[in-house]
Amino acid sequence: MTVPPPPPKITVVVPKSAAIHSATVSAPTNIACIKYWGKANTHYNTPINSSLSVSLDQCDLRAVTTASASSSFDRDRLWLNGSEVLDVSTSKRFRACVDGVRALATDKIDPNTNQVLVSKADWEGMHVHIASYNTFPTAAGLASSAAGYAALVAALVQLFGAKESYPGEFTAIARQGSGSACRSLYGGFVAWRAGGAKADWSDSIAEQVADESHWPEIRAVILVVSDAKKETSSTDGMSTSVNTSELLAFRAKEVVPKRMQIIEKAIKAKDFDAFGKVTMMDSNQFHATCLDTYPPIFYMNDVSRSVVQMIHKYNEWAGEIRAAYTFDAGPNAVLYTLDKHVVELLALVLKYYPAKSNDFVEEYVSSESLAKEALAFELDPSLIAAVEKSCRVHEHGDVKMVYCTKGGPGPQTLDPSESVFEFKME
Amino acid sequence: MTVPPPPPKITVVVPKSAAIHSATVSAPTNIACIKYWGKANTHYNTPINSSLSVSLDQCDLRAVTTASASSSFDRDRLWLNGSEVLDVSTSKRFRACVDGVRALATDKIDPNTNQVLVSKADWEGMHVHIASYNTFPTAAGLASSAAGYAALVAALVQLFGAKESYPGEFTAIARQGSGSACRSLYGGFVAWRAGGAKADWSDSIAEQVADESHWPEIRAVILVVSDAKKETSSTDGMSTSVNTSELLAFRAKEVVPKRMQIIEKAIKAKDFDAFGKVTMMDSNQFHATCLDTYPPIFYMNDVSRSVVQMIHKYNEWAGEIRAAYTFDAGPNAVLYTLDKHVVELLALVLKYYPAKSNDFVEEYVSSESLAKEALAFELDPSLIAAVEKSCRVHEHGDVKMVYCTKGGPGPQTLDPSESVFEFKME
Repeated sequence: MTVPPPPPKITVVVPKSAAIHSATVSAPTNIACIKYWGKANTHYNTPINSSLSVSLDQCDLRAVTTASASSSFDRDRLWLNGSEVLDVSTSKRFRACVDGVRALATDKIDPNTNQVLVSKADWEGMHVHIASYNTFPTAAGLASSAAGYAALVAALVQLFGAKESYPGEFTAIARQGSGSACRSLYGGFVAWRAGGAKADWSDSIAEQVADESHWPEIRAVILVVSDAKKETSSTDGMSTSVNTSELLAFRAKEVVPKRMQIIEKAIKAKDFDAFGKVTMMDSNQFHATCLDTYPPIFYMNDVSRSVVQMIHKYNEWAGEIRAAYTFDAGPNAVLYTLDKHVVELLALVLKYYPAKSNDFVEEYVSSESLAKEALAFELDPSLIAAVEKSCRVHEHGDVKMVYCTKGGPGPQTLDPSESVFEFKME
Repeated sequence: MTVPPPPPKITVVVPKSAAIHSATVSAPTNIACIKYWGKANTHYNTPINSSLSVSLDQCDLRAVTTASASSSFDRDRLWLNGSEVLDVSTSKRFRACVDGVRALATDKIDPNTNQVLVSKADWEGMHVHIASYNTFPTAAGLASSAAGYAALVAALVQLFGAKESYPGEFTAIARQGSGSACRSLYGGFVAWRAGGAKADWSDSIAEQVADESHWPEIRAVILVVSDAKKETSSTDGMSTSVNTSELLAFRAKEVVPKRMQIIEKAIKAKDFDAFGKVTMMDSNQFHATCLDTYPPIFYMNDVSRSVVQMIHKYNEWAGEIRAAYTFDAGPNAVLYTLDKHVVELLALVLKYYPAKSNDFVEEYVSSESLAKEALAFELDPSLIAAVEKSCRVHEHGDVKMVYCTKGGPGPQTLDPSESVFEFKME
């Protein structure tokens, strides 16, 4: 399957001999196992419960952002996927990130001369130009805001040489851009602590539970499910849920704290059975609270539900949890599994959610090599018999594409040659 | 639409001059507004929360049962819809009903001679023959067990001239046959009090909140939704939910008691807005707890969900609640409305869930007259515009048939000529 190429660089004309300071980074998206749903404080953009996610490998899905500052810039500007976003300088989320990170700026020192090139005060006097793009095919409908705001904050940190005054301060800034973005500032398994003990919510931060090297066998197979109807935006949905669902309030207060302990223990022990079970239960409970919202919110559809049933039959057949589904605010299924089961799982997926034909499987599955292994894999007839009780073979198109990916690191600093900008001297 | 005719009478050959005592009754089904889901005690078949339902008119949907007793019968026998159920005499549910009512039997007196025809002791010595049928097309997939066990108990009460030792004792007996059957022993609006203060659960009984004459404007439009996959039985589903859903326990303890007060107040005040809102919220919460069950249980499908969205758009457009949906353990939608809105609602239903063609509407809708009024009704263009945002016109077949019915009375004593038995003397 072809990932779209980076958009052409954004060309900006600047005065001759203008000093431009730039940093370019990439950041991952993340998929929650313990779900974030419901804001405790809309001003600080903080959650009613803690959550936990896996940061995904950046090969297929990533946001790339260049942050530049120059005394020659006459105003703050932002370009997303090639087009400029107007009036960005007044956007609350954008300002929170730019001003939040700049407040932690340090002097930029010439490594050779030890001379101060840019002082903290100098940074304050400069406007920024930000250019960002992501490699999420729009068709995929996979949330890109987490990766995008994480890349923005990470790029600004590089640009300004920012230093945290307490651990997690950068994640608290990213959280004000987009809640789940705070979890994309680390790799591996990341918890977002709800916080709330401090009046300014500075304790609502992300923490790395384990890095990507701790449990490298973790794999994610993402089924992009077609959906005709327009979805309720997360922000709107959360606020309606908080206002109307008694089950959501109970979940946040009584259920999630226990589940955070269970999943962190499971991750540390690399216990996939416990990790998978609590992940599935929490996805179901999140969607249950959406259904308990008035009017109800539906994100999963009949295809999503058939995936759920296929996975339960698969695990029952195996006598262990080999795959665990989770669904965000949409019908797409993310299936977590282990390296040793990924070919069997993909073979099962390709049987019940087939490509247009086997000749088209490379367009349908992100990994050509895995796709070929899966097509060659012989599913156990007793597994097929077990699954067929609850899952039919779907038409091609019910699932639009399949990503095969894994856990990965946090934001990466990229070479200046990968800058999203091209600055032309007048 | 054609309701299937009663099955041929069950012919039983009895010794010449044998005295046969018989009673024939019909009983309604009921549709819950506050849902019963989860058993507190499986032996006594009692619920974890109270519930409330509307007993439906018996013209379309009813169970008819004849209970007969004779010293000439050599064993207890039961026929359902024309075929005999074997080994019934050892069925726990059947025995609970027969023995439970017989224990409350009274002497049968000859009205003319005042002579005792059958003494309480005589009843004890007789076996019973029971024959029952219902007018629920199997296609409909509408629960018939509530009506069936209610008709069984009501027929036995007639047969034995049984007298309650406390109010609701008969409903406590019917509850042991099938939980929701206790609510079908009364007409109108019926609450099932969870009980549990008494060790023998004799306080888990149904009570009439208001009879069918209190709010005669109430109408029910039932959309029978096609569903490919086999559903989880209520008994199995409930037990899995009770064992795995923390949300269900919270709902039963904290949410339902408040909702019972709200809906009883709404019924007494004939406040359809309050009645409809809590009915919809409780249906959604019941299905939310099914989704929170592990593995999750799905009863609603994409067609069910589209009905939910259509009804919300309809009510938003109207600026008041004109229709309220509720879903039991299956995909069928029951829409409560008022007499003055039923034609508009049916017109909306026929637009988005059409009959094969207008020529077939009489096969598709239970009431020919209402169907014709609905076809002639001009829906407000602004209503169509509002609904079309979230609901498409479905293919015929997504909804298999539409029942138009209303609230109705409890069990009715029928003429001996309607006996389900024909006893032939040897």
